[in-house]
Parts: sequence; structure tokens; C-alpha cells
Amino acid sequence: MTRLFNDPTAFADELIDGFVAAHPGHVRPVRGGVVRATRCTSDTVALVIGGGSGHYPAFGGLVGPGIAHGAAMGNLFASPSTQQIVSVARAASNGGGILLSYGNYAGDVLNFDAAEAQLNAEGIPTRTVRVTDDIASAPASEKHRRRGIAGDLTVFKVAGAAAEAGYVLDEVVRVAELANERTRSFGVAFTGCTLPGASEPLFTVPEGRMALGLGIHGEPGIGETDIPSADGLAQLFVEELLAELPEGVASPKGRRVALVLNGLGSVKYEELYVVYGCIARRLQEAGVTIVEPEVGEFCTSFDMAGVSLTLFWLDTELELFWRAGADTPGFRKGLVSPRPRVSAESGVQKKPSSEAVMVPASEESRAAAPRIVAAVDAIAAVIDAHVEELGRIDAVAGDGDHGIGMQRGATAARAAAHAAVEAGAGAGSVLLRAADAWSDRAGGTSGALWGVMLRALGTRIGDEDAPDAHAIAEGAADALAGIRSYGKAEVGDKTMVDAIVPFVETLVARVIDGEQLGDAWDAAAAAATAAAAATADLLPRVGRARPHAEKSLGTPDAGAHSFGLIATAVAATLTRKDFAR
Amino acid sequence: MTRLFNDPTAFADELIDGFVAAHPGHVRPVRGGVVRATRCTSDTVALVIGGGSGHYPAFGGLVGPGIAHGAAMGNLFASPSTQQIVSVARAASNGGGILLSYGNYAGDVLNFDAAEAQLNAEGIPTRTVRVTDDIASAPASEKHRRRGIAGDLTVFKVAGAAAEAGYVLDEVVRVAELANERTRSFGVAFTGCTLPGASEPLFTVPEGRMALGLGIHGEPGIGETDIPSADGLAQLFVEELLAELPEGVASPKGRRVALVLNGLGSVKYEELYVVYGCIARRLQEAGVTIVEPEVGEFCTSFDMAGVSLTLFWLDTELELFWRAGADTPGFRKGLVSPRPRVSAESGVQKKPSSEAVMVPASEESRAAAPRIVAAVDAIAAVIDAHVEELGRIDAVAGDGDHGIGMQRGATAARAAAHAAVEAGAGAGSVLLRAADAWSDRAGGTSGALWGVMLRALGTRIGDEDAPDAHAIAEGAADALAGIRSYGKAEVGDKTMVDAIVPFVETLVARVIDGEQLGDAWDAAAAAATAAAAATADLLPRVGRARPHAEKSLGTPDAGAHSFGLIATAVAATLTRKDFAR
Repeated sequence: MTRLFNDPTAFADELIDGFVAAHPGHVRPVRGGVVRATRCTSDTVALVIGGGSGHYPAFGGLVGPGIAHGAAMGNLFASPSTQQIVSVARAASNGGGILLSYGNYAGDVLNFDAAEAQLNAEGIPTRTVRVTDDIASAPASEKHRRRGIAGDLTVFKVAGAAAEAGYVLDEVVRVAELANERTRSFGVAFTGCTLPGASEPLFTVPEGRMALGLGIHGEPGIGETDIPSADGLAQLFVEELLAELPEGVASPKGRRVALVLNGLGSVKYEELYVVYGCIARRLQEAGVTIVEPEVGEFCTSFDMAGVSLTLFWLDTELELFWRAGADTPGFRKGLVSPRPRVSAESGVQKKPSSEAVMVPASEESRAAAPRIVAAVDAIAAVIDAHVEELGRIDAVAGDGDHGIGMQRGATAARAAAHAAVEAGAGAGSVLLRAADAWSDRAGGTSGALWGVMLRALGTRIGDEDAPDAHAIAEGAADALAGIRSYGKAEVGDKTMVDAIVPFVETLVARVIDGEQLGDAWDAAAAAATAAAAATADLLPRVGRARPHAEKSLGTPDAGAHSFGLIATAVAATLTRKDFAR
Repeated sequence: MTRLFNDPTAFADELIDGFVAAHPGHVRPVRGGVVRATRCTSDTVALVIGGGSGHYPAFGGLVGPGIAHGAAMGNLFASPSTQQIVSVARAASNGGGILLSYGNYAGDVLNFDAAEAQLNAEGIPTRTVRVTDDIASAPASEKHRRRGIAGDLTVFKVAGAAAEAGYVLDEVVRVAELANERTRSFGVAFTGCTLPGASEPLFTVPEGRMALGLGIHGEPGIGETDIPSADGLAQLFVEELLAELPEGVASPKGRRVALVLNGLGSVKYEELYVVYGCIARRLQEAGVTIVEPEVGEFCTSFDMAGVSLTLFWLDTELELFWRAGADTPGFRKGLVSPRPRVSAESGVQKKPSSEAVMVPASEESRAAAPRIVAAVDAIAAVIDAHVEELGRIDAVAGDGDHGIGMQRGATAARAAAHAAVEAGAGAGSVLLRAADAWSDRAGGTSGALWGVMLRALGTRIGDEDAPDAHAIAEGAADALAGIRSYGKAEVGDKTMVDAIVPFVETLVARVIDGEQLGDAWDAAAAAATAAAAATADLLPRVGRARPHAEKSLGTPDAGAHSFGLIATAVAATLTRKDFAR
């Protein structure tokens, strides 16, 4: 379990500060993460990686000559926000374009995709390669849905070496895609980690038993068995991975593979070496030659007890890049010639001032702004009161971070809303500021989605007129449209969408019927709450994690549930006199 | 806990095999451990380190350019045997002499001292520097009694870099001694590790509590407190270490220190970085400049939850060597130019054949040999039957390895005794072979001591005459003298000596009085058993571990207890007809 922390909600920020302080020769801080402290050749491709914190050395620990140029470092187990990724990519850019690469998780996909679009719009050519190495997370026919685990290392390593070698963006993408296609991992787990400040581990496996198919955020496995001997585990790993050879590899015999035997945190080096000895013997028997194996901790989950084997089927080009030198805080090999350090001042970006100039607002809109602030206050308060409950619900099928992610977002949104009102903002701008702060600080899937919703609502309300029931209903409809296009979930997928759709349909229908906003919102909130509760009867959305029927049936979706809580809390602030019909 | 193993008694051998297989570019196996796989400059000093296994990357993981030339790798938490150390040192020797360096533990001291003497006798100039960095393990006035923990890294690093720079042996010793004098560590622990095949951790600390002054083999701490915040722990570390500045450092202000923040196994990187950030701030406030800090896992104890801070007070020369490049499996920094690989064949030593030529023995001695074998069989059987009990007793004040260490030794001795008899050995040679096999395979303190005892007895018995009661009593007296000169313990120190002394005194007195050997031995065994039980009323010997009165009072000493068991088991094999008066 995680025992050493100060304020649990500040844990990710503090670990990044400590990490940067410990490695000034390798990394320098920028808004949203870190970039290399050493100079790069201009006009080369920059590899920008990222993800939630809690997986050290992934992701910040892999920044340096030979691997990544920058890492967007999200909160614990939460995707970095779109703003974080854009900020890191801008700072890492050397003029040769950006390759974004990361493990395939819903929140990361949302935020990295949005960042890719924004960077391209800014004129920085940007491409993406998602890592999908975990063969236990989806069948071979649906490889694009597989999660990224320790195979991150092989893909990042090869992509970084190709960029270092001067490959242009299209070629770095080609090599990274090939590396991902040639990388397969299978993992097992014994216990989950306990996040800072939490009292329970994300999951447990009965004593003497082992979960097959680990998830590095506590996602459930695909089965369970007795803990085998070290050699029994080696046999399982080798059989699983030789049973699914990548395209172009007809037989293991005579092939060369790179190998990563990755401990998740508390399966330690001695055990790993015993298992490695057995794996090496079995692969040798299968006619496979192992090339520069890595045995240690490369993609962890705090002190989770688990271990995964990654095989990376090489060709000549991939082997060249796998063997190339690298010098990062968390992964070093071979020879890397010393690089001049970027001067301390040149690269340090100041956090953008929150006192940016406000759009001029009408009297009416400014008069309505405090009521928006009151609604945001109510959101932050209800999340504060339910943060542990939301974490508990999310831990059943997800990574247990929904409560703290929502809390970070809502807290930041509250502060931004108050600051905006004090700076003279209109009602729409208050919501826009709150939206930006929420998605930036919360990270993860829910952070991105709440950013989209509040932004849609704020845009519709604007700073001209006092917000009325129609504007708010239309804004809610815009928010739903945004969510649908962004998250691609439908009703019945056991996501937040299950609660939003009845909410918006009820709100819009009742406002059109001429109901007061307060009454309409009450009814809509009740519909959302009922729909959220009904998600308990649904299996989780395929693609998020493997269905784990016994556990997730009977548990509502955390995102739908928090939406219901928020809708109800806001209803209490909407007295009839606040908003015109 | 350790979950992945095959045969627990083969764990250390298998982990070394896997380690060697994973790092062929760095290390090659020799009898007793590993040496560098890369060529070294001739006539330079070779740094040979070592200790028990279970502390990866200590010790094998620190072999390579820039640090050690070889590592003697003992069994789990057990010192390597004298033979192992000698073998590794011979293979590592470059013609410039050997520096032996290791953490200060009784078993290691016994075996490294014996190896030093043997190497010097063979004409290989050899010196020793023991690491004594743990300020919690003895007061400043008794620094020589302090244990070595993560400060191993700073001493090894500096000594290895000095050897690499071409310093002669005296100069490497000077620098290593200065490095040790300038290195101070303080640690805390939350839980102990569970060794392979064991069902209980070596120690536990109540939930929410923290032990002050950790021992990397589960030795008890010096106190207990509530778990503080990360910053509270940083404050504790900094206060403890600034309160005891080394000679020549009058004030922390303006000084430069290297720093190692070491996780013992399951206090993970994220926590370490949060704590590091707090430490860095506090040291800065004290006017200290941190030079190239290391934050990670450098001296572990399987998956023990603990963390230590090491400060290494630099001067210009020490800083130069701290900053120098190193390229080992478990620790890499800076630039190390590539070295040619030693050819795979050249350095591989064959294990010496156990079929070495036997000393010719008399008929009488050969006829008596099977009775010696029967006694060794009885020893192995009684240890097999009590292996868990011995481990449990030892875990109270020690590292819990007494049972498995004795089992490894006795099992090897049994095999060697049978092989010797089949090869036609006399009674004395059977015991000498058993003695060598015991100390070589058992390692640790008890392995060294049982080797000394059996060797003394075998030498006295010889291969000329049938062993009689007088020869055996004299041999027992020789064994006691050997133990006393070797182990330096006295009666009342709560060690094996408490049982041996009454045993030998009783045996010798009764044999002189003319009793049959069987009767005399029975009485001696009863005296040993009673004395072993009486050690329960003694505090543990100072210097082994800090007294931990509540736990060790009421528990007999494991070494004395096993001696009593063995004496009793052997008594059963000594019928009157077996041995003449």
C-alpha cells in the first residue's frame, strides 16, 4: 500500500516536483509534464508519450536521449488533459513534427486525440500510435481495443531511436506501428495497489490464487488459477505468447525476440530472475533467440503484485533500434554521447496567468454570473461529499480514480468560477473558465467529458443576455451532442451517457412545454438519477475492461452516478426567481 | 511476499542462473558468484563485493565497469562461504590486488576475513573495507559495530571508480575507508519480506505504525512511531543524519552531499519522489548542495516495505568518483566507453570435481567411516525435521535463515560424506569432506562455524586409527577452540557457544573419567540441550542486532538450539559397540 504522502490530492504534483528535482540532468518541467533537459537536433521528430501517474518509470522516467522527448504526466491513473499534452508537445517540438504514443485507454484516447487535432491546427504536424500489447484485454480480432501495458517500452524505445536516427515523421510512425504490431504481452496479478489515502487495495485475489490478464489500474483479469511454480508461470507466459504470433512471423523457430519481463511493483528482482531463467530455457527450446532482454520494473502500478512478459518479434530494423543506446532517468542502456544541457531559463514555461483578459459582458449576464457560481459551488460540494463512494464504485470495473478525478476537476472549476466572477466575467465566461479548469486539472475520461459539457453550456449561454430556461436547455442539448461525438458511447453501454440522455430529453421537453426551469430541472435530475441507478443491471461497456460479470452487475456506473448526484445538487440552486422562463 | 519459486532451497542458485542469463554483456558466472564479462586493464585493483542474496541489485547487480569486478553471491540472506569469496576474487583478480568490501554482518565478516587470509597466503594482496553506514544499529562511539545498508552503494561506487582510475591498492583502500567514514544512513520499515516458501513475514509492524532503524534482514528496529506524512519522514531523516556529521564536516552549511533515497522493495518510486522533494527542500534550507542524487531501489530486502536515506559527505576526490560513469546490470550512470567482451570460454571455471583424490586411509579408519556417515545422516535428518522451527526462532532477533542455512549445509555434508566413503575415505577424511561441503553450501555464520567444528574434529580423528573416545573428545575440544578464536563469542552472549562449552566440558570430563563414549556423549548432549534452553533468558548478543527485549527474551538462541538438537541426534548413533573406550 502507499503509505508516504502529504495531501493525497496533491500527490501527483508533488511526485512530479520531486522527480524533476532528482533528475535535472535529464528532464526539465513544463506545464503538463516534462521534456528533455538536453538539446535535440533541430527538424527531428519529437516523441511525446504520456498517461496517468503511478506507473513509474512510465511515463516521465522514459524521457531522455534515445527514448522520448517529452511526457505528459496526468494525475494518478488519470489521463493527462488535452491542455497538458498540447503544452508538452509544443515544448518538445523540434520542427520535425510530433509522434504521440501512449497506452490505449479511453481517457487517454479522448485527450490525446483532441491534442493531436489542436496541434495539427496550430501547424505542428502530429501523428498518433497507440500501444495495444495486452493480449488478455481483447481477442486478436479486435486488436485495436487492447490495452497498453509493458509493451509501451518496446514501442517507445523503437520510436525514440528512429526519431534519434533522423527518420521523418511518416517513417517514425511506420516503425512505431510495426513495433506495436510485433509486441505482445500477457500478465498475471496477485494483489492490487492501494492508492495514496485509500484504505483498500483496488482489487484482491484470494491467497494462493493468481489472476490471469492483469490490468495496470486494477482492471479485472479474465480468469483465476492457483499460483503455479516459477517454471509453471514461465510455461503459461510462453504458451500464451507463442499461441498468437504477429503477422509475418509464421513460426517462432529461428526468430529473434526482444523481451521485457516486467514486475508491477512488489514482485521483486529475485523472483523475476528465477522466472526469467525458466522463460529463457523454454524459448530456447522453441528455437527463439532472445536479444537484450530487460528484467525489472518498467511499467508499474505502485506496489501492485503482478508480473507480465512481453515478446517483441524483431526484424533487422527493429533490432537496430531496440539495441540503440538510451539515457533516461528510468531506463538506460548502451552508449549515449553526452548532450549539451538546455540552459535552465530558456525552456521553463511560466504557467499562464489566470488573470487573462475577460470578454466584456453585459450587465444582465454579469448579474446572472453569481448564480452560475452557486451552481458550480453545489457541484464541488456534492462531489466532496461523495468522493469515496464514487471511488469505490469505480474500483469495481475501473481504476478507482473517478472520485478523486471528479474532485480535482470540481475543485479547480469552483476556484476558476469565483476568480472569473471577481474579474467581472459574464455568466457564459464563468462556465467556460470553469470548464477549462475542470478538464485541465481533472485529466482522465471524466475530466475531458465534463470539460466538453460545461464548455458547450457556457458557449450557448454567452455573455450577452441573462441565461434563460431555453438557453440552458439548448446548452444541455449541445453538451449531449458534444459528449456523443467525443466519447462515442450510446445508451446501454453503462457509461455517463446513460444518465445524460434522459436528463437532456426531460429538460428540453419540459422547457418546451413551458415549465419553469427549476421544475424542469428537478424532473430531469430525477430521470438522470433513476437511469444512473439502472446501470447497475448492465454489464460494463466492452472495450473499457473485460466484462467481469459477477462484480460489475449490481454496481451502477460511476460516471452516470456522479452525473445524477450533480444534476440533483444543481437543482437545489435553481429557485424559480433565479432564472426567467 | 515471495510467491514465485520452484524449489525454495534452490531459489538462490536459480536466481543467479537467471540473472547471468539476462546480462551476458555485463557478467559471467564463476564458482561462487559473478565477475565482469568485459575485459579489465591489467595490474589494476579488483573490487570484490558480496553478501547474501535477496538485496538486488546488491550484490551481483553492481558488477561492471565503474563499480565492482566481481560479487560473491551467497544464499538468501546468508553470507557467501569463504570458498565462494576466494573463487570470485581469484577470477576477478587483474594483478593489482583485491579490495574486499561488504556490509558489516557477523557471517560476512567471518567468511570475508578467512578469504582475505587465504588470498594473501596465495600471494594475491588483499585488503578489506567493511561498510558501516547504518547509524541506528550502534552508537557513534561504536561505529565499527554498525551494519551496512544502502551506504554499500556509495562506498562501492567510489572504490570502483578509484580502481578504474588506476589507483593502487593502498589508495583504493584509503578512498573506500574515507567514503565509508563519510557515509551515514537511517532507515524506517513498515513490514518485512516473506522469504520463498515461508508463510510468515520476517517481522510486522502494527498497521499505521513505522519501525525506526530498519534491518535489511528483518533485524528489529530501535523504536516505533505512527507513520508520519512524507514531509514528516523527510524531517526525521534529515534531523537524524544532520545530528551526526562525520569527522571533518563541522557544519552542513555550504557542504556538498551525494544522496541515496533507497526503497527496500515495496515503497515505490512515486512515494520516494514525494519524499525526495521534501528532503531536497529541507537540505537546501540547511545550506547543503545535493550532488547527483539517486532515488530508487539499490539495496532491497525482497518486497520489504521500508525506505532509507543515505547522505555521503563529499570532498573533491570523492565527488569525482561519485560522478564517474558506471555500467552494471542494476546501476548505470554517465558515460562508460564500450569494453571488449571476454571470450565466453576463457573465463568459465568448471566446478571442481568432487572426485578429488582421497588420502590413503588405514583399514581401521575405513572400517570406522560408515559410523561417521551414520552420524552425519542423523544430523541431516534432525535438521530436516526442525528446519521451520529453527527459522522461526531465528526470525525473532535475526534474519530467519538459520533453518534453511543449516539444512543446506547438512544436506551437502551428508552427500559429501556418502561420496567420500564410496571413494574409500577414512573416518577423518569423511568428516573433512563433510566440513568443506557444509561451509561451502550453507554460507552465513553458522555455515562457517560448522565447517570449523567438523574440520577440527576430522583433523584430530585422522585416517590412521579407528576413532576412539579420547580422539573424539580431543577433537571436540579442538572444535571449541576453533569456534572461540573464529567467532569471538563468550558464554552468556546468547550464541551457539553457550551450548558448545558445557557440551565439550562434559564430554571431556566424562571420557577422562573412563566413561563409554555413548554415555559420555549422552550426558554432554543433555548439558548442551539444557544450556541452549537457558539462552531464552538472555538478551541477544550486542552487535548482532539491537536488543529487542520483549521479543528475544523467552526465545532460545537458534544456533545454540540447533547444536543441542544435533548433539542429541548424534548420541543415538553412538552405541557402545561403535567406538572403543
